Amino acid sequence: MPTFSLEQLQRLAQQIFAGCGAPPAEANLVAEHLVESSVMGIDSHGVMRIPQYVDNVRRGVVKPGSPVSIVKDGEANLLLDCNFNFGQIGGTKAAELAIRRAGRYGVTSVAVKNCNHTGRIGAYVQSIAKAGMIGLAMSNGPKNGHSVAPFGGREARLATNPIAFAAPTSGEPILMDISTSITSEGKIRLHRDEGRQLPGGWILDGKGEPSCNPRDFYAAPRGTILPLGGSAGYKGFSLATMVEILAGTLSGQCITSQGDEHNGLWILAISVESILGLASFTESLGALIHYLKSSAPAANSSGARLPGEPEFETARVRREQGIEIHDATWSDICRISRELNVEV
Amino acid sequence: MPTFSLEQLQRLAQQIFAGCGAPPAEANLVAEHLVESSVMGIDSHGVMRIPQYVDNVRRGVVKPGSPVSIVKDGEANLLLDCNFNFGQIGGTKAAELAIRRAGRYGVTSVAVKNCNHTGRIGAYVQSIAKAGMIGLAMSNGPKNGHSVAPFGGREARLATNPIAFAAPTSGEPILMDISTSITSEGKIRLHRDEGRQLPGGWILDGKGEPSCNPRDFYAAPRGTILPLGGSAGYKGFSLATMVEILAGTLSGQCITSQGDEHNGLWILAISVESILGLASFTESLGALIHYLKSSAPAANSSGARLPGEPEFETARVRREQGIEIHDATWSDICRISRELNVEV
Repeated sequence: MPTFSLEQLQRLAQQIFAGCGAPPAEANLVAEHLVESSVMGIDSHGVMRIPQYVDNVRRGVVKPGSPVSIVKDGEANLLLDCNFNFGQIGGTKAAELAIRRAGRYGVTSVAVKNCNHTGRIGAYVQSIAKAGMIGLAMSNGPKNGHSVAPFGGREARLATNPIAFAAPTSGEPILMDISTSITSEGKIRLHRDEGRQLPGGWILDGKGEPSCNPRDFYAAPRGTILPLGGSAGYKGFSLATMVEILAGTLSGQCITSQGDEHNGLWILAISVESILGLASFTESLGALIHYLKSSAPAANSSGARLPGEPEFETARVRREQGIEIHDATWSDICRISRELNVEV
Repeated sequence: MPTFSLEQLQRLAQQIFAGCGAPPAEANLVAEHLVESSVMGIDSHGVMRIPQYVDNVRRGVVKPGSPVSIVKDGEANLLLDCNFNFGQIGGTKAAELAIRRAGRYGVTSVAVKNCNHTGRIGAYVQSIAKAGMIGLAMSNGPKNGHSVAPFGGREARLATNPIAFAAPTSGEPILMDISTSITSEGKIRLHRDEGRQLPGGWILDGKGEPSCNPRDFYAAPRGTILPLGGSAGYKGFSLATMVEILAGTLSGQCITSQGDEHNGLWILAISVESILGLASFTESLGALIHYLKSSAPAANSSGARLPGEPEFETARVRREQGIEIHDATWSDICRISRELNVEV
């Protein structure tokens, strides 16, 4: 697999997005978002998305340069319209607004409709934590991509509906970024392609029976991914429903629209300053971190790791040693670069 | 098992709390909270708590009549001190304040410290949904009651740290109220007392090995409950950490205080009115509900049920047919009533 530095990937991704019509600042922002995900080891949300995003621009689904507008301005409660620009443009603007308004009101909620792929939603809460605030974000997905069954059902009614949370510390933030399903479609595909059985409790086949055969997920009728929680899967389903209501119903990005390919997003910023003061908060959070990590390791484990810790470790390694790109992804990126006259 | 009407239990519980020193309005509120939990079938948070609460008053841990004070007032971001009154008094005041301020600012966050047992935190978000808003609530627990291991650890570092969420519909609200652990101590105790093995993935023994023997949980060294998620238990641990940060670190109810028996609570209210209008929101949520419930049933299931649906069904039955109380709980309640000269 070819290996690249962060700077190489950033320059290339920026030129590709600029080459397909994004204004320079937007091209730069989307490139940074994807490259940072790759750096952190979240490859499913990294530069492998470049070909998909370019394809979406060509199909007219993504409209680069489209302004993100404020539809409703209720002081600490806002509704934005991403107007079909890259999801990262809407998400970044929403996080900036949430930070600014939370500085004034103490807390701010921002819902965003008509986003394209919102990318790694951890990025938005990470920027809120960087501003010394607590961030919470959720994102839904359009009907045509639904793969997760409600607990008790056998037909997909939800996307993997992620929840992200971040809080500032004296070092790297606490950074959670999880889907509310037990796994993702990408992991099922990997098992299928490698000829491996799935762990129990991941999917139902099209008849609603538990299955460990990854091919059952892609058969007709389609299988479904189970919500987080196993026998307590009503918990994962409840969390996914909460995400759907905040990111979808509240934003007006209704899950039920047929043929719609877009995402809704919800972001909350809470000022720590107006309650405890940032220094006192991070000191107290430092004590919590120490306490959590002091739990002796379970069998076959090296001990508790904080939300975000594995990703920040990967980022340290990849910043130094470079980022490996899968051959198939690299070949796609090279093809697109040629088509756009971007020098690789 | 003796069976009672809602009114009988309400009158009795109210008189017991008044009898041990709570002002009438507080006695009434705590009684209503516990009886409603029993009516909804959430018996672990219902009238079986009466003896524990009375004991806490006698030990001076709960201070009835203590005023709930505003420590910091940052417009849409507040910190309250429950001042060791019943947790329900602080929680109810926090929800009322959140609703009032969210009416002004669009959204409001309220953290509360020095609560006693916060009870069923679903009650607070339910009251927010009743006011036509979206509610979110989380609660942490003191160190001496920690039973949940961080993912990868074998020593308990968290309580079952629940998350509750509610949204208004044209009928009963969507109502989620879940712990972020795979199970509760009460369910492990039930398996032990009935001589049954636990399902796999619920606990680790004191050496950090997976176990299905409920006695391992109570042995020395103590076993621990696993976070929600099974092999994806980092997700449950991440959610529990988020709860700890919002309900504990932000409120100043630090998890790390030794000997402290109190809880922290965090409540958020989001106005729907200023974004979509309530009628438009509930119409859109109605379409989501219809879509979720239209998923054909999985094998051995009667189909998807909404968050809160089983509890509202139980409430309909119990309002009509009365509430059965376990003999042991009833005998405890009778003993306390005699001691307080309350007529049963």
